[in-house]
Amino acid sequence: MIISEQSLRTFTQKIFLAMGSTMEHAMLSTDVLVLADLRGIDSHGVARLIGYVRLWEKGRINTNPNISIVHQTPTTATVDGDAGLGLVVTPFAMKLAIEKAETYGSGWVAVRNSNHFGIAGYHALMAVEKDMIGFAMTNASPLVAPTYSNERMLGTNPMCYAFPAGKFPPLIVDMATSAAANGKLEIAQRLDKQVPDGWIQDANGANTTDPHALKTGGSLLPLGSDREHGSHKGFGLSATVDILSAVLSGANYGPWVPPFVSFLEPSPNPVGLGIGHFVGAMRVDGFRPADEFKSHMDNWITRFKEATLIDPSQKVVIPGEPELAAQTKRKRDGIPLVDAVVNDLNNLADKFGIERL
Amino acid sequence: MIISEQSLRTFTQKIFLAMGSTMEHAMLSTDVLVLADLRGIDSHGVARLIGYVRLWEKGRINTNPNISIVHQTPTTATVDGDAGLGLVVTPFAMKLAIEKAETYGSGWVAVRNSNHFGIAGYHALMAVEKDMIGFAMTNASPLVAPTYSNERMLGTNPMCYAFPAGKFPPLIVDMATSAAANGKLEIAQRLDKQVPDGWIQDANGANTTDPHALKTGGSLLPLGSDREHGSHKGFGLSATVDILSAVLSGANYGPWVPPFVSFLEPSPNPVGLGIGHFVGAMRVDGFRPADEFKSHMDNWITRFKEATLIDPSQKVVIPGEPELAAQTKRKRDGIPLVDAVVNDLNNLADKFGIERL
Repeated sequence: MIISEQSLRTFTQKIFLAMGSTMEHAMLSTDVLVLADLRGIDSHGVARLIGYVRLWEKGRINTNPNISIVHQTPTTATVDGDAGLGLVVTPFAMKLAIEKAETYGSGWVAVRNSNHFGIAGYHALMAVEKDMIGFAMTNASPLVAPTYSNERMLGTNPMCYAFPAGKFPPLIVDMATSAAANGKLEIAQRLDKQVPDGWIQDANGANTTDPHALKTGGSLLPLGSDREHGSHKGFGLSATVDILSAVLSGANYGPWVPPFVSFLEPSPNPVGLGIGHFVGAMRVDGFRPADEFKSHMDNWITRFKEATLIDPSQKVVIPGEPELAAQTKRKRDGIPLVDAVVNDLNNLADKFGIERL
Repeated sequence: MIISEQSLRTFTQKIFLAMGSTMEHAMLSTDVLVLADLRGIDSHGVARLIGYVRLWEKGRINTNPNISIVHQTPTTATVDGDAGLGLVVTPFAMKLAIEKAETYGSGWVAVRNSNHFGIAGYHALMAVEKDMIGFAMTNASPLVAPTYSNERMLGTNPMCYAFPAGKFPPLIVDMATSAAANGKLEIAQRLDKQVPDGWIQDANGANTTDPHALKTGGSLLPLGSDREHGSHKGFGLSATVDILSAVLSGANYGPWVPPFVSFLEPSPNPVGLGIGHFVGAMRVDGFRPADEFKSHMDNWITRFKEATLIDPSQKVVIPGEPELAAQTKRKRDGIPLVDAVVNDLNNLADKFGIERL
């Protein structure tokens, strides 16, 4: 099914309103989710809605959160999301970071007591729109094992850095710190297709290409895949995201992070509140005039596009470019939704008495 | 040869003094280099001295730099290193970041017109000593090709995040953003030993295990090694380091970064001044009380040490622990230097009329 951006927005807002969100929060949540679908990151778009509804039904997501600042200095703060969705909690935190950056040059906000925040890029781009460099990261349900372990201790813990450019679109590095994002594994599972060596290990810690190995105690591997190829670096990056997002904010970290799926219960002995995020903004003109920076960004991008190619048909990809190309196409041609997602969404429509897609 | 820390310090200071450094700068440079040797990161310790001397002889390193702040806001700044060694320029920048953090919660400093800065961990640890989270990164001579390219466009561009803990030592993630650090490749070259697939490619962009492939137009691969295993993420991280260190500060970036070796000339058309670094400090108590944070860091470390193991003889490694173990051992037993390094150092001693090692 191909659906227009506007129809998908209208439908998604109705679902959030039916869960008791305010109109403001329903529109904001929709904006974050639909941007993922527009940018081709389908695993983080409206496909997530049914999971949110299930967590809300279990009382694990508060759709009317009282988001508050629990601690702050001129350029740092900790925000409590009141068990709200990261989709609304994180923009609150990023707005605060941007305000601090406007006055002092930079702003940094750690978030506790939150839930899934969608794509990191949405939040980082809020800063870019103000000629700032944007940072966003989050911890997530444990699926990834540290190097030498077969225990799921860390989420795919994405980190995002976004930089404004001049004539080119912003350069956005938005990446899971695991070898493969969970969304890619889900696609392989759906197609029952073997995955490359180095993405996952089985319950004993042996290499496997079986995409279903996570269901029998397997785990995702950190970026680098094995020690020889730097998996300790992927582990270190994931640890960094976990510490900044949760140890710093007072959220749950490591294996205590609450599962994103409603059929798994959170730890009975949590070490913090909900999941954690970390966002930041730095004014470009806190370092050099913004037009100078942007013109050098353009030069950087131009030069990397001109790098010699191994295969002339496969160009060097500037981070963020494929997602922007998808966004342009899908805004024009509509957003493709797979049958399973359409079914889920129509079931939600029936549940809430909303018109089906 | 095994040499005591103190003897190595005395010798190294004399070399810097002979190059015209002030006593303060000679002591500081020595402190950075010897910490690398103590921590077992031999590629970044006194083995570098001969390279520094050669660059100084060519007029590419200024041993008496007038380091200055060229732009700042309350929490951001750009520092010009006046072509000094990063060993002295970066501590200046980190001190400034720490001062800003003391007043405003966080501080961020981009550095241009600098040279090699030693181990990133030295600079990040300066913040940790003040109960702050420390960040340090630098760009470097181009050796790494972006995904899909066979052109050396980026350095091994390390990033370092350092966190204070309580009863445990600080957790320090200090990593090259390439699959293998250049130091590891140099060891393989010295031993004429094949390297693992996924570290380097030859001039045509084909996989190779020949450690000498870089001498015939080959390149290092980004962390992730190939597209299927996430090399675009390693490229993205390296790009992030390059942009924060150089596009933001006004240093050279990408393929324009001046070579670290004196027999290769810098670009005749530079896009900035010298190489660039980026450092930052955030007060832990800008987010939550420092003792709370440290006690949760201890809990994080304890739990990760208890992760189930694939092979009971190989424990999970907490980032920074092996380096600290080396430091303790070498402080006690002395620092081993390989013959090639001892010869280089004694040649320097002869050149400057200093007593040999």
